[in-house]
Amino acid sequence: MITDKKLTNPFLLQADDLSIEDIYLIFEAADYFLDNYKPGVKFNDLKGVTVALAFFENSTRTKLSFELAAKRLSADVFSFQSKTSSLAKGESLIDTLRTIEAMGVQIYVVRHSCSGVPHFLQRNSSGIVINAGDGKHEHPTQALLDAFTLRQHFGSLKSLNVCIIGDILHSRVARSNIKMLSTLGANLGLCAPGTLLPRDLVKWNCKIFDDIQLAIDWANVLLVLRLQNERMESGLLPSMSEFSKYFGVKYPHLTSKPELVLLHPGPVNYGIELDYRLSSYPNVLIQTQVTYGVFIRMALLYLFKHSFLN
Amino acid sequence: MITDKKLTNPFLLQADDLSIEDIYLIFEAADYFLDNYKPGVKFNDLKGVTVALAFFENSTRTKLSFELAAKRLSADVFSFQSKTSSLAKGESLIDTLRTIEAMGVQIYVVRHSCSGVPHFLQRNSSGIVINAGDGKHEHPTQALLDAFTLRQHFGSLKSLNVCIIGDILHSRVARSNIKMLSTLGANLGLCAPGTLLPRDLVKWNCKIFDDIQLAIDWANVLLVLRLQNERMESGLLPSMSEFSKYFGVKYPHLTSKPELVLLHPGPVNYGIELDYRLSSYPNVLIQTQVTYGVFIRMALLYLFKHSFLN
Amino acid sequence: MITDKKLTNPFLLQADDLSIEDIYLIFEAADYFLDNYKPGVKFNDLKGVTVALAFFENSTRTKLSFELAAKRLSADVFSFQSKTSSLAKGESLIDTLRTIEAMGVQIYVVRHSCSGVPHFLQRNSSGIVINAGDGKHEHPTQALLDAFTLRQHFGSLKSLNVCIIGDILHSRVARSNIKMLSTLGANLGLCAPGTLLPRDLVKWNCKIFDDIQLAIDWANVLLVLRLQNERMESGLLPSMSEFSKYFGVKYPHLTSKPELVLLHPGPVNYGIELDYRLSSYPNVLIQTQVTYGVFIRMALLYLFKHSFLN
Repeated sequence: MITDKKLTNPFLLQADDLSIEDIYLIFEAADYFLDNYKPGVKFNDLKGVTVALAFFENSTRTKLSFELAAKRLSADVFSFQSKTSSLAKGESLIDTLRTIEAMGVQIYVVRHSCSGVPHFLQRNSSGIVINAGDGKHEHPTQALLDAFTLRQHFGSLKSLNVCIIGDILHSRVARSNIKMLSTLGANLGLCAPGTLLPRDLVKWNCKIFDDIQLAIDWANVLLVLRLQNERMESGLLPSMSEFSKYFGVKYPHLTSKPELVLLHPGPVNYGIELDYRLSSYPNVLIQTQVTYGVFIRMALLYLFKHSFLN
Repeated sequence: MITDKKLTNPFLLQADDLSIEDIYLIFEAADYFLDNYKPGVKFNDLKGVTVALAFFENSTRTKLSFELAAKRLSADVFSFQSKTSSLAKGESLIDTLRTIEAMGVQIYVVRHSCSGVPHFLQRNSSGIVINAGDGKHEHPTQALLDAFTLRQHFGSLKSLNVCIIGDILHSRVARSNIKMLSTLGANLGLCAPGTLLPRDLVKWNCKIFDDIQLAIDWANVLLVLRLQNERMESGLLPSMSEFSKYFGVKYPHLTSKPELVLLHPGPVNYGIELDYRLSSYPNVLIQTQVTYGVFIRMALLYLFKHSFLN
Repeated sequence: MITDKKLTNPFLLQADDLSIEDIYLIFEAADYFLDNYKPGVKFNDLKGVTVALAFFENSTRTKLSFELAAKRLSADVFSFQSKTSSLAKGESLIDTLRTIEAMGVQIYVVRHSCSGVPHFLQRNSSGIVINAGDGKHEHPTQALLDAFTLRQHFGSLKSLNVCIIGDILHSRVARSNIKMLSTLGANLGLCAPGTLLPRDLVKWNCKIFDDIQLAIDWANVLLVLRLQNERMESGLLPSMSEFSKYFGVKYPHLTSKPELVLLHPGPVNYGIELDYRLSSYPNVLIQTQVTYGVFIRMALLYLFKHSFLN
């Protein structure tokens, strides 16, 4: 047995569903899988458990990460996408959930372009719901893997200065990370044009930067967000190149401060929020995040099974 | 071993491919899986057997039900849909079948919008073909799960009055159920506007109702069909609301006769054939049908393997 | 253990990545799986190994063949198609590969409409890349299964006269087969209209036929290619019916030479490159090719694992 401790809640809808003890428990299980997985090793912990991947929005990395995590634990996995399902026939979301649930699915991984869909599903289901990104709201497993990546790199997040750069207003990644990294003791900063910052900045308890150089001077970690093309069309930005000029991270930004580390949830728009030359820079930990993402999701699935399905 | 009895035919194309002994044998195996499955339990009975899900028509619940059933028995499952396959290149159905067959697939689950496709495939294949719904013809596994649901609820189908309501003319669910429920001793009634009744009513040996209240007075079970939007466009119905007014099942219909039970193959058009308030009414057994559907399909796959692939 | 010999290269991008010893080793492993596979038998050789099927071009048979091969060896398999992935978001191919690789995938099976994509991916990845068809370049596993089919039928390829008929200019199947069958000792002939022959014929070292009857008189084996509709549109052919008249293989062609054997990579355009009546003619080995294709791919996956992932 990896651990006999259990998670508090039979769901993960937003970052604050996890207590600090829950987060450390997930890290402990992720450590175990990180140490013991290699090609040819398969874990039986989720044998006979069915995991539904209900992705109502395009996704490569998050969906694949959950799929691999579930398969490495021997779960039965099935994918469920709106385009190939009867949703086209007008079946409502809740009816779809009830149908899947009646078939004996135990764990639901849900991504949806509307904020709140995972919460809605969780309230109407007896299964375990994991939010894999809902609209502009939260993406808690991304925050978990970002925190785990920083913990592996720095040993601890205590007093670490983390600055989130880019379209914070529309970012579920930012929202989940602000909560989770704060819980783990990090100091948070935000750096963005005024139109891409949230209104209610006070309650977020973050330092605000409108100059990327000042942000970099302050930070131990840059968490750079993907800039969505849609933002420009909606008039929030004058142009991609202006955003890139003032808020994009350049090669000299990193080389001038050798201990500075950079995270990005991917996929990156190279040339916009990140300089092309950074794609293989050692302190850019994007591939590491992806690698740890699978172990974090194995840990999460293992702990949900162990805590609530025995 | 669950049972050493065997099925008669190495295919299930229509309801009368199953003798009454076959049906009871399937129920016996379904009972076994219903009693023994729980999260974390996996059966090895189809290990090393390949099941192809060839769905040429959109489907959520039937495809998923077969997929989960096959995976819980440890089969290798692969999905096959026309849009993502070379059918777009003009490869004919029979060539596709021969290709899949040459790869060593043993069991085919087929849904197609044209009546007779599963029969055509079965005549041209040495594999076991299961009809998962063909055009307006038959949907025999739906009838099996409907019958199993009624047998679990009432103990037996003997002398049970079952009234099918809605678009009987175009319904493969109706066609399969009329045969199978009759075989099991139920009395069948049909309730629909004249334009949605088949021409050759005499040979069906059913009571006909054109008033839903009379149907409800007579019935122990209402089997309500989904109304396809297409019917209205084709001029068979004046309007959805008129159909709903005269042939939709309302909340008081069920509350006024507490022992009356309602089935629906899903997905439901709430507000058309069923009152919204019925979605969580205890005697509406839609979720139960879905649950039993997986066990019925596990039973069927198990018995085909056990009967014909050893 | 099936064999303790190992492959030379940890990739298969084109036919000449395999030495003659490699080819015989693959045949040896394929023989083993051919002799030992039957419904209900499952091999554990790839348990805990993750195989990514990255098909950026429509495919039924090749994708399915790899999928079944991997599943019969107990690999974790996931499919990856451009339409349902974030490629639509503008993520570049190399970023996608890096992401998948960071998740711990060990083997990549890649099909792409652009020649050279598998080579590009292999150069940028530490994983094992298998080319499942790239543009007009190569399709080496098709050549392997064609060679295996001929070796099973004739015992050896030494001095066998193999004539490839059809659109050789655009055919990755032709390119891989010319190399591999030559390596195994066969004599190669090409029969096509001048517009569908490559420019640099000399270096190919093949006999050229512009009359199908002369080709048939010479050949022990006809390898007939699929004619793509696109060729006509591009002005390379005056009409399908003229191609069919002069270069299509007719029923009397085969009946007049009973030992002559015919291969086709599928899917066939019956009525264009092949007479309809040949679809069930005994010496037309198309289904046999498909059957052997799965065993060849099992052999390949097994040997890559055994040679490079232990």
